[in-house]
Amino acid sequence: MADKIYVGLLGLGTIGTGVARIIADHQNKITQVVGQEVVIKTVLDRDIEKCQNFFGDTVNCTDNFDDILNDADISVVVELIGYVPAAKEYISKALSAGKHVVSANKDLVALHGKELMGLAKENKCDFLYEAAVAGGVPILRAITESFASDNIKKVMGIVNGTTNFMMTKMDKEGYSYDEALALAQKLGFAEKNPTSDVDGLDAARKMVILARLAFGTNDITLDDVTIAGIRDVSIEDIKLANRLGYKIKLIGTAEKIGDSVNVEVGPVFVPEAHPLASVNNEMNAVYVVGEALGETMFYGAGAGELPTATAVVSDVMNIAKNILLGITGKNFNDYEVETLIATPEQVINPEFMRLEVTDRAGQFLELAKIFAQAEVSFDKIIQDPLDNGKAIIVIVTHPMSKAQEIEILQAMEDNEDMKLKVHFKVLEG
Amino acid sequence: MADKIYVGLLGLGTIGTGVARIIADHQNKITQVVGQEVVIKTVLDRDIEKCQNFFGDTVNCTDNFDDILNDADISVVVELIGYVPAAKEYISKALSAGKHVVSANKDLVALHGKELMGLAKENKCDFLYEAAVAGGVPILRAITESFASDNIKKVMGIVNGTTNFMMTKMDKEGYSYDEALALAQKLGFAEKNPTSDVDGLDAARKMVILARLAFGTNDITLDDVTIAGIRDVSIEDIKLANRLGYKIKLIGTAEKIGDSVNVEVGPVFVPEAHPLASVNNEMNAVYVVGEALGETMFYGAGAGELPTATAVVSDVMNIAKNILLGITGKNFNDYEVETLIATPEQVINPEFMRLEVTDRAGQFLELAKIFAQAEVSFDKIIQDPLDNGKAIIVIVTHPMSKAQEIEILQAMEDNEDMKLKVHFKVLEG
Repeated sequence: MADKIYVGLLGLGTIGTGVARIIADHQNKITQVVGQEVVIKTVLDRDIEKCQNFFGDTVNCTDNFDDILNDADISVVVELIGYVPAAKEYISKALSAGKHVVSANKDLVALHGKELMGLAKENKCDFLYEAAVAGGVPILRAITESFASDNIKKVMGIVNGTTNFMMTKMDKEGYSYDEALALAQKLGFAEKNPTSDVDGLDAARKMVILARLAFGTNDITLDDVTIAGIRDVSIEDIKLANRLGYKIKLIGTAEKIGDSVNVEVGPVFVPEAHPLASVNNEMNAVYVVGEALGETMFYGAGAGELPTATAVVSDVMNIAKNILLGITGKNFNDYEVETLIATPEQVINPEFMRLEVTDRAGQFLELAKIFAQAEVSFDKIIQDPLDNGKAIIVIVTHPMSKAQEIEILQAMEDNEDMKLKVHFKVLEG
Repeated sequence: MADKIYVGLLGLGTIGTGVARIIADHQNKITQVVGQEVVIKTVLDRDIEKCQNFFGDTVNCTDNFDDILNDADISVVVELIGYVPAAKEYISKALSAGKHVVSANKDLVALHGKELMGLAKENKCDFLYEAAVAGGVPILRAITESFASDNIKKVMGIVNGTTNFMMTKMDKEGYSYDEALALAQKLGFAEKNPTSDVDGLDAARKMVILARLAFGTNDITLDDVTIAGIRDVSIEDIKLANRLGYKIKLIGTAEKIGDSVNVEVGPVFVPEAHPLASVNNEMNAVYVVGEALGETMFYGAGAGELPTATAVVSDVMNIAKNILLGITGKNFNDYEVETLIATPEQVINPEFMRLEVTDRAGQFLELAKIFAQAEVSFDKIIQDPLDNGKAIIVIVTHPMSKAQEIEILQAMEDNEDMKLKVHFKVLEG
């Protein structure tokens, strides 16, 4: 066994430099906790000069992955390159060569996590990815260890910092969607092409990872997730939400319903007193309900160089300890159940709907008939007249199933005097 | 090795029955995660009949600890008896006999944790106590594992559910201190003799445990903690706090200042936007600031049969996995630094003060002189006249040291026209 734990680092971007910084700055504590020094030996990056400028002579800089793969000293590979096909290739090769892997790559884990975990087991290797979901929130470890003795009923997360920042600006400072997006882009929270964030895809990937771990349903994929983003959320809806006692948040929900699981991402009306309602700006939080443990919430930075790098280094340390204890590749969470996806009849929530209707006698009766037909009742109603002979009707329903919702939406579509502008899920208080 | 993991349970109170229930109800998941069945074999309780009524024939009920100590099948002892001298004796004997121990006993761990951990190491045994601090919040594991790669700067906790329930009733529903206490007692949150809760001692014990783990300062004891309770918090102060944009919470703080540590418990003015401000009712939360990870918060039930029992069973499962991996007594957190306690000059905070002064010209000048003398400046001032020729003066200071505070308090005491009614720490926004 080597006298130190040698790490190969793939990708020297923001998180990569953060990892190097933390290993250097906290060396004393890390060595004490692990029982041996943890050292970055080789860094893979296309820009070798940048790498050499950053590390000086202390690290080998290379653009050839084989320099890491074929180095018997290196026992842990940290993958931070992002691009999924390359990441998958490198990780597969590393695991096949008996090297343990830490990744912060949510796309990779959501898409190929099950396969890579299988490969890790086969090769008696560890494969950890705490940083892939809500970087600064140690939620994966909490779910697998602290909830080990409990049955998890529900996981709800604000797991995308960009959209949470935007919604906070809209709610607290009256920004429009476009203004909020422009500011997020200016501050570096959002990409030039913000699709992955604002359309809910990023959150959906994280919810797939959370759902697998929480419920042992390892066959869940992105295709099983109902995904909506925040493009339809207007200042008008945010004001209505506040008037009704809610905050609108982009929430990922993974829920056990009987033996089935429902996973969805979308804007949700969260009651003001709920812990998730006061998670603001770019912060993340994951709210977990256990059968025995009750409600818990884990709050922290969702992204950022150092928070994400801290999660990566904690995973590296975990593996380093396993190496020294001789138990790598042995301590897997083998909890697995059959993956059943909930039907539209099983998924039940109250719903917020905002409609524009022609302002004439009998119109509300039409609406009432549609809901009565679907056997759905109203919890709250607001009607405001508009200038153009139309009226706005806002409805919060009592809990109804997705199947009932589909029926109602269809009936509204068939009625030319009635236009459903938006509808969002409401979290029960 | 036995074919199952056999547990000996000491004490069949609320938590004990919870532990039994969780092991029975979640048996399927527990067996999958551990890789072997976990079974309660013997229960120690004075009331053997109650034990037999609860378990039927499935468990041995005894009032003699030797039946557990001398049973080679039993590898894990769960201590839930509370009374410290007996708990300490049983745990010491169990560890000396090579049995692993799980405890939920904060008093025991705060008082004798270091000694018992030493005994565990000596005997190559595990000794875990996640349930001792904020039962339903997996904070000890988060601190030792997820923050392993980070230097923790500060831990702030609402770690006493009883007082948080009382403060919430006072803040939200205008209860007086006495009314809030009576309700807490009626609901079973507070003991008949509420001293340990309302005087801050319970929170202080938990903060000792948190401080040791967070900073590696294992020599911290209760004597190093500055402790104040909530008896002095009046509705008047709560209203003033709200007027100034704060919530008053009983907060335990453990803070690294240079190489020193300050641990204190007391009512704190928490800015309304701070995550701790919206932790209400009997819920607990621990807010941790890491050098790299930034701010995080862990929220959940502080007590209760099932949340606490869940934490206990997760510890048992952790040990069971270690037994099967052959690494019990090896995976200790060896992070330790010298324990230095901060001086009054090092501890710096803004302070809230409410004074009653004689309402006459020059009186405010006197007050201003006292603060100028101590080189402390005002952030906010409110003066309200009273009917009796007196006035109320409320001050929020800019940050000052404890040493400056002591100087100011002394000067106020020397002035007979000035009466300091209360003073509380203010958390900077």
